Amino acid sequence: MSSMSSVPVPGIVGGLGPASTVDYYNGIITEYRKAVQQDVYPRIVINSVNMTDITADVAAKSYGSLTAKLETAVQQLKNAGADFALIASNTPHVVFDELEKVSPLPLISIVDATVSHTVARGWKRVLFTGTLFTMNNTFYPEKFAKAGIDCVMPAPEDRERIHHIIFPDLEAGIVTPEMKARFYEICNPIINSAADAGKPVDAVVLGCTELPLLIHDGDIPLPLVNTAAVHISAVVKRMRCQ
Amino acid sequence: MSSMSSVPVPGIVGGLGPASTVDYYNGIITEYRKAVQQDVYPRIVINSVNMTDITADVAAKSYGSLTAKLETAVQQLKNAGADFALIASNTPHVVFDELEKVSPLPLISIVDATVSHTVARGWKRVLFTGTLFTMNNTFYPEKFAKAGIDCVMPAPEDRERIHHIIFPDLEAGIVTPEMKARFYEICNPIINSAADAGKPVDAVVLGCTELPLLIHDGDIPLPLVNTAAVHISAVVKRMRCQ
Repeated sequence: MSSMSSVPVPGIVGGLGPASTVDYYNGIITEYRKAVQQDVYPRIVINSVNMTDITADVAAKSYGSLTAKLETAVQQLKNAGADFALIASNTPHVVFDELEKVSPLPLISIVDATVSHTVARGWKRVLFTGTLFTMNNTFYPEKFAKAGIDCVMPAPEDRERIHHIIFPDLEAGIVTPEMKARFYEICNPIINSAADAGKPVDAVVLGCTELPLLIHDGDIPLPLVNTAAVHISAVVKRMRCQ
Repeated sequence: MSSMSSVPVPGIVGGLGPASTVDYYNGIITEYRKAVQQDVYPRIVINSVNMTDITADVAAKSYGSLTAKLETAVQQLKNAGADFALIASNTPHVVFDELEKVSPLPLISIVDATVSHTVARGWKRVLFTGTLFTMNNTFYPEKFAKAGIDCVMPAPEDRERIHHIIFPDLEAGIVTPEMKARFYEICNPIINSAADAGKPVDAVVLGCTELPLLIHDGDIPLPLVNTAAVHISAVVKRMRCQ
């Protein structure tokens, strides 16, 4: 297919974790095929790295080492013929700005994609949920603030409670109605008190690629932002707009 | 993990189809982690190619073109740092011997892995099932014959019937008890008449990476050879024996 050879090839830094990588792989293929309405499959390169190695850097806040490892991973994707790259996980985006400066390929950020998605819908304030690491960092709220969007972070004790829905159960693929109810019980008072204070929240961001396994539209009385799905859409858009 | 940097990196020629690629990816990670009993993840590179492009070559018997495309795909995996490669599908193995001659990386063949697995169990005669394309070709029976194993191929009408269990339903992920019963109804008379003729079959080879979605141990009164699982085990063995 000569027409396929000009389609930009996405390179996925994967394995962070593997379940999320599979979601991205299936999601990119499905969304691309739906968009072009042809019986073709886009070329995709995946470089699945050692998750334990990356999470050790994250835990130790060894951001220089983390950036260097991701740079190497992107270089390997470039060597295989990828035209642009993405990291299929929220957490490593803590070093996205540093990585972008040294990256041998253009990168598509899950944070930027999420902010653009929010801006496009005219939302002004979002409640952010994710792992403790992501909630305790500033890489999401800073990017939202630059776009004029207020990013409400749960209070410290609520961050712990959200984190312990994700770890260890959800991360291990366990999904129960009780876990879903717990998530709702944490978010609902935050949403209500924001409304009571005259600063209503417009949407809830699922800032962890595992949360959409648990929480679906209708579970919370507000629109949800599935960051992995938004990231995949940005990737497919890039593949189609050269 | 300095110990991880010396683990040989498998490169998967994937997308043929995507569901099978995901099985290989998950399978290699799971089996490797089980084998080493450590919280590490092996690096894996996947080059997912355009399936439509490959199946067009297969249908047209354009084997020179098919070999050249697979050679390019393996070269891209090598460029990304893969140390050896595999094709996550039975069908393209029709050109395996030609590919091996020009391949820039050592390759692990699903056919060789299946034959070795059969030899190791002391089996002398196997019933082969797969797609019409694979059953109508000689790349499996020839390799079995070299190892002194008799490979029974279904009669032409049975090949058609087996093929139409795989296409379109099983290939699209559809699995019903009726399809399973149909597979049994095709294989059972072949197994019985081989036994009646004094040439009993020792095992049934599932020579299509989708068949294990439908047929499991116990469905047929003989051992099954899951070619994808056997291939994955050979890959993990290679990663562990440098």
